[in-house]
Amino acid sequence: MSSSTTSVSQALHWRYATKKFDTRKIPDATWEVLRQSLSLTPSSYGLQPWKFVVVENPALRAKLKPHSWDQTQIVDASHLVVFTHRTEITEADVNRFTQLISTVRGVPAEKIEPYRQMMLGGVVKGKDAAGQKEWAARQLYIALGQLMAVAAVLEIDTCALEGIDPAKYDEILGFKGTGYQTVVACALGYRATDDQYAQAQKVRFPTDQVVTKL
Amino acid sequence: MSSSTTSVSQALHWRYATKKFDTRKIPDATWEVLRQSLSLTPSSYGLQPWKFVVVENPALRAKLKPHSWDQTQIVDASHLVVFTHRTEITEADVNRFTQLISTVRGVPAEKIEPYRQMMLGGVVKGKDAAGQKEWAARQLYIALGQLMAVAAVLEIDTCALEGIDPAKYDEILGFKGTGYQTVVACALGYRATDDQYAQAQKVRFPTDQVVTKL
Repeated sequence: MSSSTTSVSQALHWRYATKKFDTRKIPDATWEVLRQSLSLTPSSYGLQPWKFVVVENPALRAKLKPHSWDQTQIVDASHLVVFTHRTEITEADVNRFTQLISTVRGVPAEKIEPYRQMMLGGVVKGKDAAGQKEWAARQLYIALGQLMAVAAVLEIDTCALEGIDPAKYDEILGFKGTGYQTVVACALGYRATDDQYAQAQKVRFPTDQVVTKL
Repeated sequence: MSSSTTSVSQALHWRYATKKFDTRKIPDATWEVLRQSLSLTPSSYGLQPWKFVVVENPALRAKLKPHSWDQTQIVDASHLVVFTHRTEITEADVNRFTQLISTVRGVPAEKIEPYRQMMLGGVVKGKDAAGQKEWAARQLYIALGQLMAVAAVLEIDTCALEGIDPAKYDEILGFKGTGYQTVVACALGYRATDDQYAQAQKVRFPTDQVVTKL
């Protein structure tokens, strides 16, 4: 059953970049849907060049804070998700995916071969190192957008955290040498009753200027 | 009122990259929420460096198709949204935004000055031309992720279209010289009953491998 247009519209207006979280924890059943939101995110070719790391350890969170403009959401929010992508997209990544297609859908490898070649041409051979990283980073931003929207309709607060030092995150979280690297993070939980930004008027250019027709 | 975890989870599983749309049109009330989803998308600093162009004109859609790997969604879907960002982020863009903050929230310009300086340092002076474009493109991908998630909970089908020729889009849609350029597109509408992909098993790496804990 779909959600009503009214409730979704309300959720999108209710959402804001939460500056101050309180200590309430997201219930397991709700968190499960947010986890699913991450792994079900659509990606280019379906390649899923990512890993999402939920930092629970308070000591690690405390270490990340100074590398995140000292934003308190890093330590206060119920959940902190760090978005990482493959440092490099190789033929092995493509093969891992085509093998998964073959297993899940029961399709023989030779039928997937043209698609495998398309991915190799498009992402592995067709992009240089910087191009691969940027392609992968964009996929992470789809996941970020989907996660924040899904959270809003579930009445979970979020704050995207772009102002982080990815290299420091990689160091502190031990990503170096794992084949994954940090791009962005997102805090999730519940707004504190005294977060003054919760009441602030949303600042948006008029929809008619931003969404136009041709 | 929030949506139920069950209905949101079902929506995320129901969604797939729709290959074949039928001719049904998205009702106005539903489209209005999808439009809002675009303009309410969270962005870095709140700067909204974007314009979303809904291509209604069938002749224009037909012209775009050959520059979109001939995907039929371009002409068949109820709505086709082209995601564009500012070709360059200038001090004028930042000023336009701070003026809006001042107007909407009734805050005097001098109180916003530190924030204005932060944005100038972070995006206008702090990034070269390529860095600005990539920063802006990532913001568009938040909008894309949010749009697809919101559509799913409203039982609207989508297909993100990354396989397009942005330069040709700019030419055909007359964006050259407007200060905006195409990055990606998204088709929205209703899956055709004979779209074989609608029944295909979703191919995802196990959630426990993709969402990990520390």
